[in-house]
Amino acid sequence: MPLTPEFWNALKTEFPEGFFSTEEALLQSHGVDWTRAFSPNASLVVFPRTTAEISRYMALCTRFAVPVVPSGGRTGLAGGAVAAQGETLLSLDKMRAMGAVDLLGQTLEVEAGAPTEAVHEHCAQHNLFWPIDLAAKGSSQIGGNLATNVGGVRVIRYGLARQWVLGLEVVLPNGTVLQLGGALEKNNTGIDLRQLFIGSEGILGIISKATLKLVRIPPMPHVLLLATRSLEDILRLFLRARQAPFTLCAFEFFTDKCLARVQQHRKLHMPLETASSHYALLEVETENPESLEAWVGQCMEEELVLDGTLAQGGQQAKALWALRESISESLSATGMPHKNDIALPVAKLLEFCKGLEAFFADKYPSWEICLFGHIGDGNLHVNVLKPEHMDKSTFLAKTSEVDNDVFALVQKHQGSISAEHGIGLLKRPYLHYSRTPEELALMRALKKTFDPADILNPGKVLP
Amino acid sequence: MPLTPEFWNALKTEFPEGFFSTEEALLQSHGVDWTRAFSPNASLVVFPRTTAEISRYMALCTRFAVPVVPSGGRTGLAGGAVAAQGETLLSLDKMRAMGAVDLLGQTLEVEAGAPTEAVHEHCAQHNLFWPIDLAAKGSSQIGGNLATNVGGVRVIRYGLARQWVLGLEVVLPNGTVLQLGGALEKNNTGIDLRQLFIGSEGILGIISKATLKLVRIPPMPHVLLLATRSLEDILRLFLRARQAPFTLCAFEFFTDKCLARVQQHRKLHMPLETASSHYALLEVETENPESLEAWVGQCMEEELVLDGTLAQGGQQAKALWALRESISESLSATGMPHKNDIALPVAKLLEFCKGLEAFFADKYPSWEICLFGHIGDGNLHVNVLKPEHMDKSTFLAKTSEVDNDVFALVQKHQGSISAEHGIGLLKRPYLHYSRTPEELALMRALKKTFDPADILNPGKVLP
Repeated sequence: MPLTPEFWNALKTEFPEGFFSTEEALLQSHGVDWTRAFSPNASLVVFPRTTAEISRYMALCTRFAVPVVPSGGRTGLAGGAVAAQGETLLSLDKMRAMGAVDLLGQTLEVEAGAPTEAVHEHCAQHNLFWPIDLAAKGSSQIGGNLATNVGGVRVIRYGLARQWVLGLEVVLPNGTVLQLGGALEKNNTGIDLRQLFIGSEGILGIISKATLKLVRIPPMPHVLLLATRSLEDILRLFLRARQAPFTLCAFEFFTDKCLARVQQHRKLHMPLETASSHYALLEVETENPESLEAWVGQCMEEELVLDGTLAQGGQQAKALWALRESISESLSATGMPHKNDIALPVAKLLEFCKGLEAFFADKYPSWEICLFGHIGDGNLHVNVLKPEHMDKSTFLAKTSEVDNDVFALVQKHQGSISAEHGIGLLKRPYLHYSRTPEELALMRALKKTFDPADILNPGKVLP
Repeated sequence: MPLTPEFWNALKTEFPEGFFSTEEALLQSHGVDWTRAFSPNASLVVFPRTTAEISRYMALCTRFAVPVVPSGGRTGLAGGAVAAQGETLLSLDKMRAMGAVDLLGQTLEVEAGAPTEAVHEHCAQHNLFWPIDLAAKGSSQIGGNLATNVGGVRVIRYGLARQWVLGLEVVLPNGTVLQLGGALEKNNTGIDLRQLFIGSEGILGIISKATLKLVRIPPMPHVLLLATRSLEDILRLFLRARQAPFTLCAFEFFTDKCLARVQQHRKLHMPLETASSHYALLEVETENPESLEAWVGQCMEEELVLDGTLAQGGQQAKALWALRESISESLSATGMPHKNDIALPVAKLLEFCKGLEAFFADKYPSWEICLFGHIGDGNLHVNVLKPEHMDKSTFLAKTSEVDNDVFALVQKHQGSISAEHGIGLLKRPYLHYSRTPEELALMRALKKTFDPADILNPGKVLP
């Protein structure tokens, strides 16, 4: 539905100069996220500088039934921030202010547009940090981090973003501004409305400010790369690491196929001599590095670990992490990997992966399947590479079929079709594999309660 | 409204022998919590053994519009589990089963009636624990812990109960059973419905099972009792402790008035020689006890700490904790303390307490005010003792006035009128000091979505 002259007139007269833009480049850049599957097609983009301006814009859009897509750092991978249907965009780019770090309470109030990395830098001078760390931190914004309940590489140590927010300021579709929680650690006063906005991908309200909970920067961790002969041994190693006398900060996993693609694309040095099929990257905190070395030695003696290296210093640690962190980009460089971000109960990972392997061996024996992920959280990235001889449209059609089969397997093992990327537009047709009809009905009722006119991020998440 | 013969008939014919009871002693014991202000008056109590029985009972109550109060360990302090209006009680006492501990995933599935302490004991044999620890753990049940989002003494280290649950099974008022989350750490698939049930005191659904997240039992902590000259110094000490090279597990506070009442009631040994006005009890984890001693020494040298003791071994640690943990009971022994459990942003504690002191000095100069609490979380227990010469009804009337003034002060400092006890019946008239009319309207809409006939814990939480 095109925007009416009355709406344009109100927009021009009721808001300050520069509040909105229809410049094509901005509509293009701000109307999509990192998901490549959608083309942007926004009507205009607004750049509020205050919560009051967000509120007034939402009230205007309610008055004229104009749809609004919140636009943060746009690093999402599910199309949650895409405006492809002529919606208007509400960018948080001009709301990046950060308050003073509260040293006593270890909290920080920020506007939603503050980039994750800027928050880290702001806190670092006080030896504090917001323990949510992800590859996209340079661009991703706090509001988007919270709207998608972001995870990242240290979930096993620190949990998800939900855990690291005390207060939220939220603007509802009708313009109402809610102040929820403030700087309180404890506040048991009825239904905790904050939780509804965290992880719901901007379909219930727009997060405009947040009070973050901070922690002390931990001592420099130790990074290890260990090779095993099977996924079963990766999981046995994980159990051993959980019981060992150190604090596990990350437990990442990848296969030899991922490693081969990394070496082909980036030509990184591989510090292990023994070729192996399954690798684990561990990050641990310990005050006693000797016991860590002894632990690795013991695992090697038992042949649980076939080969391994412990980074000596920050440079080597970085080099080990680069092997893991280059996987996604190296697979993308092959042309057209089909990506899925799923989660399983850790206890069911092995059985699930066996089923997955059997499925592809049976149905698509020539396809290359690359598995990696935050396996300590049960989070697996399943990447399927397009066979060279296959044309793109055939591959796309087949992967859509594959998704249904893979998600049915996920469902069978009580897993999740989206561990951390969310649902957005991309996973919406598949949401029923993770949520029952009763749950979907409740979600729709909640959406209706908060957004009766369906103007906020319409068409996202809910099928 | 009395129960109809049709309801009784259905109850008797559709459920197994022993499913319900009208025995007066059971109605009395199961119809109240630890709050003394309410008299139980329940119609009957049911003891389901399975989720299916809960579901069938709720469907029956929906059919006949019969109100249901969930009844767990009944250790609440806000009347959230009270049946005073002829409601029926649904006890979780016969749903105490605990699954096998999942060592790899570090999870445990339990039925909602499992007592907190039983869960601790069940996990301890695997060197794991559920890090929610509270004085009532012998009686309190997991379902109630989650329905009230319980905190306890180690929130500063581990956070609230919300953080330690992965999956919930919930029965809605109409009998629908939801399986939410399972054993997944990560599951970003739309609105997280689990969060609505955590902390909402049983007004939206009945938690029947939970999958808990466990952690390794930490090494034996060190316990210190430190004396300072003022609240200001307590907070300076807190900041120092947060920045010190050890992990803070608890930072508790009490005044000399609390201590005097403890010594009067329990005659516990006070290990410090210097009389002081403000005390902090610290529990810390460290691999380096010498540096802890050096830290205390430094604080004493600077006269931030006037006197202090570091427990040598478990017995002494227990004795120090006993001083803190006997406060509530010692104040109750004086007859009729008026209790409040409030929270402030840590950064505003000092200003709030000055305001509180000024208020009582001005309006009620002869009253004894005892302050203690989990000050590291901003959580303050404000206890007001009845002056000896005052009769009970006068005191009750005055404390009701006092509450309004104290809560207005809490509101002024962006605090919460209920840090961890919840709202229940007791705080319902005061909820508006912590939640706005817009928030209350949203909560009512949510209540209506989940419980359209208002049969589940009616009259609780929402004014």
